[in-house]
Amino acid sequence: MNIEYVLPNEIEKRSFEIIDEELDKLGIKLNSDEELVTKRAIHTSADFDYARTMTYSNDAVKIALDLIKNGADICTDTNMTLAGINKAVLAKFGGKAFCYMADEQVAREAKERSITRASVSMEKASKNSKPTIFAIGNAPTALITLKELMENGYKPSFIIGVPVGFVNVEVAKELIIASDVPYIVNRGRKGGSNIAAAICNALLYMCKE
Amino acid sequence: MNIEYVLPNEIEKRSFEIIDEELDKLGIKLNSDEELVTKRAIHTSADFDYARTMTYSNDAVKIALDLIKNGADICTDTNMTLAGINKAVLAKFGGKAFCYMADEQVAREAKERSITRASVSMEKASKNSKPTIFAIGNAPTALITLKELMENGYKPSFIIGVPVGFVNVEVAKELIIASDVPYIVNRGRKGGSNIAAAICNALLYMCKE
Repeated sequence: MNIEYVLPNEIEKRSFEIIDEELDKLGIKLNSDEELVTKRAIHTSADFDYARTMTYSNDAVKIALDLIKNGADICTDTNMTLAGINKAVLAKFGGKAFCYMADEQVAREAKERSITRASVSMEKASKNSKPTIFAIGNAPTALITLKELMENGYKPSFIIGVPVGFVNVEVAKELIIASDVPYIVNRGRKGGSNIAAAICNALLYMCKE
Repeated sequence: MNIEYVLPNEIEKRSFEIIDEELDKLGIKLNSDEELVTKRAIHTSADFDYARTMTYSNDAVKIALDLIKNGADICTDTNMTLAGINKAVLAKFGGKAFCYMADEQVAREAKERSITRASVSMEKASKNSKPTIFAIGNAPTALITLKELMENGYKPSFIIGVPVGFVNVEVAKELIIASDVPYIVNRGRKGGSNIAAAICNALLYMCKE
């Protein structure tokens, strides 16, 4: 193996060319609307499983782009996703990204009620006065709480449901897929804070173009 | 599928039980020193490939734990990894975590020299007066630069080499494996800022016990 000389500003382009070549080899043709989002999930994980498991509601990408362009906020369930989201691009459209996981009051309330901080964070975020895109990369309990809030009349603008793991992750994602909220969900156990940030950034870069 | 009721403080324990069951099914027996680190990489990605590709130099975990217990710093190549590292535990041992990727002077110099910000960040970090563990979750160029610095006499204390992607990722990891630095590397294309943070946290939690 030798080092391939690629200029810094060409690395991402070259990476996406390689992803295209590999998808071709696997015989996978992505839906054109969704292609840039799924490919950015692959780019951030080098895991081609995402080409088969990423699931979109009708017109999901179009709806998400309209929301961002109209200044929607993004609520995440991890500070890692918050760190990864391109907040400068989001701010250009009037949106802000936020995460309540490190909020002391959220931690206290979660402990008192024996529920997760992610669940309390969702309840708190549901009071945001602006349209809100939820980008969930870690906690299935965040999705379960969002579903409960929806049953009580709350309407999240959009859910990016890509928690990762082994306890209630798959069932929580199916709850969102079965609901009437617009969504991008990665079916199965995989996902993560990096995937949630990658999906947000793919959408943000599409808005910028 | 039904929601399994698990108390918040039991979710992680239950997750690791499921990971153990799956590893058993796959017939994989991890080395006992390395087990908690590899399992935390699986926990953060739900990707069992890590059980086969995580690669450790001799006594890597023991060396890393000694470094942390003696106050070593951790330098990362992404703000997402920085956000994910449990900095409170690190601080208890006297270490701090840092990342120069958002440093304006680093960005300027990278542009002038047509190299990546990750490369300039590593040069800057090599001047840290304290023993430094490098946790690289994104940029293979960070590993290539660390290798060049080593050829010029610099001794990183430890390298966690888990960049992700398609351009020079595999070759950069092999450079570290072939060097004489103590390392934890994930061979192949996979890795990421989440994996880098998970490895750091696995080590930190082992120090705490």
